[in-house]
Amino acid sequence: MNIAIDMMGGDFAPEAAAKGVAAFLAKHAGAAHLQLVGDKAALETLCKQHQISPDRTSIIEATQTIGYHDHPVKALREKPQSSIAIGFALLAGGRSDAFISAGNTGAMLVGSMFSIKPMPGVLRPTIATIVPREHQKTGLLLDVGINADCKPENLNQFAQMGAAYAKTILGIDEPRVGLLNIGEEEGKGNLLAQAAYPLLKQNTSIHFIGNVEGRDILEDSADVIVCDGFTGNVLLKLLESLYPITKRQGIEHPYFNRFHFEQYGGTPVLGIEKPVIIGHGVSGTEAFMNMISLAEKMIATRFLDDMSKSFSKDLA
Amino acid sequence: MNIAIDMMGGDFAPEAAAKGVAAFLAKHAGAAHLQLVGDKAALETLCKQHQISPDRTSIIEATQTIGYHDHPVKALREKPQSSIAIGFALLAGGRSDAFISAGNTGAMLVGSMFSIKPMPGVLRPTIATIVPREHQKTGLLLDVGINADCKPENLNQFAQMGAAYAKTILGIDEPRVGLLNIGEEEGKGNLLAQAAYPLLKQNTSIHFIGNVEGRDILEDSADVIVCDGFTGNVLLKLLESLYPITKRQGIEHPYFNRFHFEQYGGTPVLGIEKPVIIGHGVSGTEAFMNMISLAEKMIATRFLDDMSKSFSKDLA
Repeated sequence: MNIAIDMMGGDFAPEAAAKGVAAFLAKHAGAAHLQLVGDKAALETLCKQHQISPDRTSIIEATQTIGYHDHPVKALREKPQSSIAIGFALLAGGRSDAFISAGNTGAMLVGSMFSIKPMPGVLRPTIATIVPREHQKTGLLLDVGINADCKPENLNQFAQMGAAYAKTILGIDEPRVGLLNIGEEEGKGNLLAQAAYPLLKQNTSIHFIGNVEGRDILEDSADVIVCDGFTGNVLLKLLESLYPITKRQGIEHPYFNRFHFEQYGGTPVLGIEKPVIIGHGVSGTEAFMNMISLAEKMIATRFLDDMSKSFSKDLA
Repeated sequence: MNIAIDMMGGDFAPEAAAKGVAAFLAKHAGAAHLQLVGDKAALETLCKQHQISPDRTSIIEATQTIGYHDHPVKALREKPQSSIAIGFALLAGGRSDAFISAGNTGAMLVGSMFSIKPMPGVLRPTIATIVPREHQKTGLLLDVGINADCKPENLNQFAQMGAAYAKTILGIDEPRVGLLNIGEEEGKGNLLAQAAYPLLKQNTSIHFIGNVEGRDILEDSADVIVCDGFTGNVLLKLLESLYPITKRQGIEHPYFNRFHFEQYGGTPVLGIEKPVIIGHGVSGTEAFMNMISLAEKMIATRFLDDMSKSFSKDLA
């Protein structure tokens, strides 16, 4: 399997990506071949420096870079030699089996939608975040930002995609799915939640446990919590702010160390045909290593094939 | 001034309310006369027990109680002798100047809307929460649950009411108002936030500083953050869950002690004609004491009169 990595994306590029590659290779003896996309001279130097074996990697030159402030659609069109554009070209053309970047999120989403495309039957692809919980448990919250305005059918599909991810990638046998809401009983909530509830209840491919509230997000409640991308994005950014606050306050505790979101690596774009993983701008060594592992697992488990089948079945 | 208190509302009623009354009287020499609404025999015993002076209080009998699971509208109609119904009757009839309860929130909201009524010009009353921040600062977040679905004009009015509250009651000179959103620039967000932005920008009665994100909620960003009641309620309940989690994790730190929401007392219903304060079900001594102080301040500053004038001006 070939995994393409945008070495130029992220605040600490290309060093962080190179260290992540080195860490992955040292830890995993597997068959994954890593395609390092970026500035050739810089990458050759870094590969030597971090003893990255040329047997398990290849450098693919990208002479342009998409910055954080570039307009996603324009940048992809006007910079065909950028690491993001090349990564998507490799993936779309079948020369790579997954693509990872911690660069411009907007460009990554545009590439996911237009170079790779949603699975037939999927109305809106989604991105999720891991939520740290007590006793080393985690939850999965989605959508966390692609879909600011949602229809009830979108939430129902997020539930299905999130449950599949929780099962195959996070290893949770029969993931409990909850609808984020502002009351426990059916019929509570805003118009979206009220309309989504019956769809989730009727969805036989998930184990729906009903409404969950804000207080349940960090509790051992639903394994998968679905909400619109506005609410999810606000929640994600609030949760991400806790770790730096505790550091500033001098609170050093294993519980809050798990709010260091970097350790979870990136989030895959769920609902598109091929594995695309988007990393946080501040991704460091660990994040890159984890994203490569995640890509490897997504390819090895044929996770997206199964998901695609499940949605095409709904279409038939 | 007369402040009516529902002594039968809340998980620890009537003891917690009685202790709160005693603590308030011991701390404040002011002119406030407290009307204790509830079971007469029980309150007489508690008043003796906690040395609550009959000079500064009077007991007003209520022979019925509205429970947490009672249907708000039905309960208010079918239990006219309940402490909540009597409290609203006292306030509506001018025999009280404020009403406080930690009982059935739904019944308190129904009473606020139908016994007291919104100010002319106010489309939707709102409730807010204090958000603890570093360096002993606080923010104000609203709406936190009355208005699950909002129109842009609602958010604009919440901003105005929240800013007035921050100024007069919290003592912040020119409160910065932010719109909760999922991006910094104008034009970002869901349809609601996109449409609310220009209204807030044009509102000359507030100091609008633009969009704020999830990461800004606990930061020293906007003093007043407005959002729809769905998002706000989810956030409030998430923030409320942090204190019990830190306790369970054995984290004892002044920063997280400020997430013990009880200390902030209750929230006033903003946008109605008279002061109504709703307490949390778990309200204890401190919460009741703080709610009485808040009621006193709202009456003394003629806060609602000023707010009412500002909205009638908009009507003219």
